[in-house]
Amino acid sequence: MSRVRYGTHVFMYPMPVTLLGVNVGNRPNFMALGWVSRVNANPPLVGCGVAKNHYTNKGVIENRTFSIGIPTVSMLEKTDYCGLASGKLFDKSALFEVFYGDLGSAPMIAECPLSMECRLAQTIENPSNNFYIGEIVASYTEEKYLTGGHPDIKKINPLLLTMPDNRYWTVGEYAGDAWKAGMAMKNQSEK
Amino acid sequence: MSRVRYGTHVFMYPMPVTLLGVNVGNRPNFMALGWVSRVNANPPLVGCGVAKNHYTNKGVIENRTFSIGIPTVSMLEKTDYCGLASGKLFDKSALFEVFYGDLGSAPMIAECPLSMECRLAQTIENPSNNFYIGEIVASYTEEKYLTGGHPDIKKINPLLLTMPDNRYWTVGEYAGDAWKAGMAMKNQSEK
Repeated sequence: MSRVRYGTHVFMYPMPVTLLGVNVGNRPNFMALGWVSRVNANPPLVGCGVAKNHYTNKGVIENRTFSIGIPTVSMLEKTDYCGLASGKLFDKSALFEVFYGDLGSAPMIAECPLSMECRLAQTIENPSNNFYIGEIVASYTEEKYLTGGHPDIKKINPLLLTMPDNRYWTVGEYAGDAWKAGMAMKNQSEK
Repeated sequence: MSRVRYGTHVFMYPMPVTLLGVNVGNRPNFMALGWVSRVNANPPLVGCGVAKNHYTNKGVIENRTFSIGIPTVSMLEKTDYCGLASGKLFDKSALFEVFYGDLGSAPMIAECPLSMECRLAQTIENPSNNFYIGEIVASYTEEKYLTGGHPDIKKINPLLLTMPDNRYWTVGEYAGDAWKAGMAMKNQSEK
């Protein structure tokens, strides 16, 4: 054991890779987003950390709706492009086949194996990033991505992100069952 | 393309697997946490969605500090146990070798390849979960987990989580470079 300090700009291992969709002036725009997590169980709330200089903020403010799409590995180049090319300068509206759901103003990507549409519930203004908390009002997938009625990560085949080495990764192998693998240890533990 | 609705209780693919550490009455407690993300760049803020009935809330309120540890695959059973056995009934303080950093009250796990200690900055009360936003004040790792001075996810070998199928996964292969793979597409795009 030789513990070393690493500093404060440290990230999760891994981060998911998502595409955050908004309409700005009725034109769909998508940004790559890795700072995203569920934040509440009931109702289902999700939060997104978006740097304040991003074009996407305009769309969230304009419509109070957004979408989160999970791209698959074959969408790597387009996904990365969405993280490089700002909607301020680049029209990304024709990059994907776009569809709308119940909210009508949260553009979603047909190619994404899984998309959720969200109604803005709360904005937390942090110093450099807005944190948008949205309620998931619907989600969309295809039968081919489901196993036993639920999304199957190996069928979705999503991308993972690491920073600050800035690399994408795939999902590896099944490793165990959550809320089960530790049950024997729990049963043997003294209360 | 045969789009289907999936419902609203949908999750990220994948979620990271972390251990959230707090002291409750000077006794270390750890819970498994997958709802966690960076939320701000400068200062470095991280947010954690913790169900309101969890014992861990006591520790966050008591000390206004917490830690986030990234366990490695070989810690799967202990990590899952931390998600199954509530600190209300089980003393988890001897499960790991614990150390403290600058804050003195955020217990960290020596076996975790990466640990960050956080000072509570803000609590967002959502209906079923508290969302704790903390500033990362320090992080700790070992040289063997670094490549080029930064954490290497293949050396960390963390766990991923999917819900609602409740499974753990490993990290797979390198898939591409972020903020680079889409550069050719950007250069070819018209502004």
